[in-house]
Amino acid sequence: MYTVGVDLGGTNIAVGICDEKLNIVAKGSVPTLAARDPELIVKDMSDLVGSLAENAGIPYSEISYVGIAAPGSINSDTGVVEYSNNIQMSNFPMCEIFKKYSPIKTVYIANDANAAALGEALAGAAKGAGVALMITLGTGVGGGVIMNGKIFAGGVNYSGTELGHTVLVAGGRQCTCGRRGCWEAYSSATALSRMTKEKMTELSLKGITSLMHSMEKPDGSVSARVPFAAMKQGDPYAKEVCDEYIRYLAEGITNMINIFQPHVLCIGGGVCNEKEYLTKPLIEIVERDQYTRTNPNKAKIVTATLGNDAGIIGAASLGK
Amino acid sequence: MYTVGVDLGGTNIAVGICDEKLNIVAKGSVPTLAARDPELIVKDMSDLVGSLAENAGIPYSEISYVGIAAPGSINSDTGVVEYSNNIQMSNFPMCEIFKKYSPIKTVYIANDANAAALGEALAGAAKGAGVALMITLGTGVGGGVIMNGKIFAGGVNYSGTELGHTVLVAGGRQCTCGRRGCWEAYSSATALSRMTKEKMTELSLKGITSLMHSMEKPDGSVSARVPFAAMKQGDPYAKEVCDEYIRYLAEGITNMINIFQPHVLCIGGGVCNEKEYLTKPLIEIVERDQYTRTNPNKAKIVTATLGNDAGIIGAASLGK
Repeated sequence: MYTVGVDLGGTNIAVGICDEKLNIVAKGSVPTLAARDPELIVKDMSDLVGSLAENAGIPYSEISYVGIAAPGSINSDTGVVEYSNNIQMSNFPMCEIFKKYSPIKTVYIANDANAAALGEALAGAAKGAGVALMITLGTGVGGGVIMNGKIFAGGVNYSGTELGHTVLVAGGRQCTCGRRGCWEAYSSATALSRMTKEKMTELSLKGITSLMHSMEKPDGSVSARVPFAAMKQGDPYAKEVCDEYIRYLAEGITNMINIFQPHVLCIGGGVCNEKEYLTKPLIEIVERDQYTRTNPNKAKIVTATLGNDAGIIGAASLGK
Repeated sequence: MYTVGVDLGGTNIAVGICDEKLNIVAKGSVPTLAARDPELIVKDMSDLVGSLAENAGIPYSEISYVGIAAPGSINSDTGVVEYSNNIQMSNFPMCEIFKKYSPIKTVYIANDANAAALGEALAGAAKGAGVALMITLGTGVGGGVIMNGKIFAGGVNYSGTELGHTVLVAGGRQCTCGRRGCWEAYSSATALSRMTKEKMTELSLKGITSLMHSMEKPDGSVSARVPFAAMKQGDPYAKEVCDEYIRYLAEGITNMINIFQPHVLCIGGGVCNEKEYLTKPLIEIVERDQYTRTNPNKAKIVTATLGNDAGIIGAASLGK
């Protein structure tokens, strides 16, 4: 038997058909065209599942269920997207609508960040971990918590594990959530770009030109890859930016370890591509600072391995 | 059938026999005398259980099990106190030793803060909550997390939910755990005493005498009750201290709600005796700041109701 994972993103709908070992045996994508009626998006999701299955020679009868990873606040019990901002949906009964268009009548749904965490916990960098945490460093700082192979999405509602929206610097930088000093405002890729730009401005005012300046885009912005790229080429100012970024990241990760003591803490998102330039100094700080520093059983910190497939594989695992 | 809860504290061993509805039907205590051989402490625990049962006319055959709430890092699976500082124990097989002295051969054990959280979740202020968080404001800031009637104590070890050891003010006040800026350094009763004393010193230097000064102890120290007591009598400086304390407390509680979205967040410890003087302004800030401020389903914030019995009742529930 097979299971299907649908990862509904703001740009693309990605679908994968998985075998029982969670290998993706067929994969495809179509544009989301996020501004249209969400029912049309769901119809395209169903159509893509159908065409992929047909091309792979897999009859519907061999597909146990479809799992959907969707953005926003998702009620996994009712199958309803209670609220989503990226693709505008409000109390949208996605599972019901999927079943209207598809012969597959068993449909699960979860938040996309949580589904990606589940994917890494079942088939990726956190495979086999009883308690796994995933931290995604992208536009924001996303969080996912997996306990015994199941997503923990909160108690009184489905909007829990907003790990990036925990204040690390009371009264600090403004966060998009309305508070000041959230972890996200210091450890997202967006924050790293901003810290880099601030350092460059500070240097310019002192008449110093750093390697980072040569990596600026024509519009004056800098990507979050710039400080690491310049540091690798020996730029001491870039190293200052990276060190500061890693220090805040370590504070937040240590907080999460002190709370959950996960078997594995998995770091995903664009910034994790820096690999050991990020993780080596990070792990040093966390090992020193964590509450259980003398305990031989400690959380293992790793980088994600499934990339964009994490959401598909997590979605395809929702019924397991 | 009955169950027995033993709450092993640094000062007293408290024991309660509970009926099936978790009412304490018999209760007693003896001094811990913490400096002695821990085996002697366990023998006294067993003796007290025996004498209480005899006096209450409850034969051993009607006691299903004994649960022990003990300080430190507790391995609930093996029944071993891996490490405790208050009562010096290291890899101490408490459940085994209890069975050596007692005819009761089913014995459970958990960390005392976690047991108290379980007590409040099953029979106190958080009764019926699927996900319950307990925050204890005492010498430190203790944390307990209950999910579906079970303690969550961490994944890779049993030292999780150290909610007080999450940094709230990066680079801030020194914490006993070695880090700077932990929530505990701002929201414990100890921190409140210190903030009060600092405000009094600041006022003295300006030649201002506040009501708080008249509440100083002969040795120059102040209790954590002072700022609230002085505020209630109209002291504006005391109100400044209380406002600042509540602001940090709200930041930490908002963080925990954004992570867990518990059905109930229960505040215990000495400071919770301030009741609505604490909770009313606190809830206002949390309601405004939490990530799910617009969601109709939100965490309920309450003060603990079981007091010192929470540990006994939680311990007596460990086998349920």
